[in-house]
Amino acid sequence: MSLPLPALLVSPLQVSLDLAGISVFALSGALVAVRKKLDVVGVLVLALVTGLGGGMLRDLLIGAVPPATLQDWRYLLVPMLAGLVVFRFHPRIARIEPYINVSDALGLGLFCVTGSAKAMQYGLGPVPSALMGVLTGIGGGILRDLLAGRTPIVLRQEVYALPALAGALVVVVPWELGLYRPWVAIAAAGVCIALRLLAIRFRWEMPHAGSLRG
Amino acid sequence: MSLPLPALLVSPLQVSLDLAGISVFALSGALVAVRKKLDVVGVLVLALVTGLGGGMLRDLLIGAVPPATLQDWRYLLVPMLAGLVVFRFHPRIARIEPYINVSDALGLGLFCVTGSAKAMQYGLGPVPSALMGVLTGIGGGILRDLLAGRTPIVLRQEVYALPALAGALVVVVPWELGLYRPWVAIAAAGVCIALRLLAIRFRWEMPHAGSLRG
Amino acid sequence: MSLPLPALLVSPLQVSLDLAGISVFALSGALVAVRKKLDVVGVLVLALVTGLGGGMLRDLLIGAVPPATLQDWRYLLVPMLAGLVVFRFHPRIARIEPYINVSDALGLGLFCVTGSAKAMQYGLGPVPSALMGVLTGIGGGILRDLLAGRTPIVLRQEVYALPALAGALVVVVPWELGLYRPWVAIAAAGVCIALRLLAIRFRWEMPHAGSLRG
Repeated sequence: MSLPLPALLVSPLQVSLDLAGISVFALSGALVAVRKKLDVVGVLVLALVTGLGGGMLRDLLIGAVPPATLQDWRYLLVPMLAGLVVFRFHPRIARIEPYINVSDALGLGLFCVTGSAKAMQYGLGPVPSALMGVLTGIGGGILRDLLAGRTPIVLRQEVYALPALAGALVVVVPWELGLYRPWVAIAAAGVCIALRLLAIRFRWEMPHAGSLRG
Repeated sequence: MSLPLPALLVSPLQVSLDLAGISVFALSGALVAVRKKLDVVGVLVLALVTGLGGGMLRDLLIGAVPPATLQDWRYLLVPMLAGLVVFRFHPRIARIEPYINVSDALGLGLFCVTGSAKAMQYGLGPVPSALMGVLTGIGGGILRDLLAGRTPIVLRQEVYALPALAGALVVVVPWELGLYRPWVAIAAAGVCIALRLLAIRFRWEMPHAGSLRG
Repeated sequence: MSLPLPALLVSPLQVSLDLAGISVFALSGALVAVRKKLDVVGVLVLALVTGLGGGMLRDLLIGAVPPATLQDWRYLLVPMLAGLVVFRFHPRIARIEPYINVSDALGLGLFCVTGSAKAMQYGLGPVPSALMGVLTGIGGGILRDLLAGRTPIVLRQEVYALPALAGALVVVVPWELGLYRPWVAIAAAGVCIALRLLAIRFRWEMPHAGSLRG
């Protein structure tokens, strides 16, 4: 990547994609908050945390502070608007939840790619960078579930981290080999999205170790 | 603000106010720990986390590391003393809990003001700075509830974040307009404290979205 | 300490000890995940978080970013391998759990010493540095329990934080007096390990405040 960091951060396409991913994640966070009977503050906080939490954790860990999402008010406004929309229209939003799950796969694909690429830009090696890509994708949902008082769904049921890992690997391996190009990013997001959609479609589940007592 | 940052940080009045706010928050954290039957370590950890957690999260996010509260041993000693007092004398402390709730409003007013002002000093915009003010006020209580194994009360019941947001807005809007003066800080804290006390007095509740199934 | 930081970080003995401590902590995290019926992702995440979480929290707070454990792929590989071993062979691993608990005491002794020494190196005072030593020892287990959906065991039952505090104090007091030598580190780890093993052997428990209602 020969682009200086600031140029990358302000690319209008990148910002638009980021905001799209954040808003879909925020919708899922707000829906969980409504289901858990939280009040309007809870809905807004879960929308913010689900939309921004993964990227913030990544930025804290790679040393990109203040996190990008605290340097641009749009990154805060979009998830709060998503939260207010869910708070007001939740029965209608709940009816389109299958579509939200599909859009969520797009957000996951985007986040695992931008997350691992940003970690590589900040000088981390390929293995930690892949982990940062996964964290960007699943961190918000983990914080959402902790705040909502349930065991994080990504740790016990859903095939969600694996597609993110696959996408992140498609970023970091070519990057390490000096072969990273824009189309690689698109391919990486595509791999993640396809795996996630297949997992939803065919109700894949990750294996369990079974009971220790059994 | 023409004062350099170090001067601000070491102002004796500021430190005294900070310590007062931290100790009240720490008392509430220790009481929750006693009620949840945690041991003396749990009481001390919850006192520390409730008193210092919000400011630490803010400092991590705005890039003020190490957090101010790790650079002065008094910031650690005060909440630990508060924890030990509650551990030893909790039945008496529990009897004065209504007064603790009132004092807690003073801590909230102080924290939302210092939190949003510090974020502005570190170059964040007004919207993120207001959010940092709210985080400084509610972050410790959220961490306390997570560690104690309950859904954070600020997300489901209490009118607590809204007064903090009001106080933070009274800081960041004048600051952005170049009109920030010391009396503005006092007015901002007053707005937050008044709203919080009214919320306690009249048992205000934030609206809920109702059941998604209903 | 006249050694420059990078030399300290790459000392082969230090890295080997770190990896040993991390792997024991990771085993305990993975066992909790299996018991809580998490899937393979949950087992891996809890192995990583338990092994690396305490040190990462410390590094974030003292400003050592990216954390050391994100700058060397071995720090990620070792806990993931530990997680996979538990996932595959958990009945056998569960049978040797008493030995894991003993090894865990070694990890605790190591972490409280390296954690408090690193904080002193980064310029924190002795009281915050001792706290960072305790955090390095107990932080991973706290995150593990939060993610597994249970109240952190260190806050309610086990004598675990106190040995870490004792070890950390044996580091920071001589350091502050200019008397820190390598054998002091060994003595500090020994104090922590001995206390922890005594606590396991004699089933020590930390005092509780009793019920507030009682």
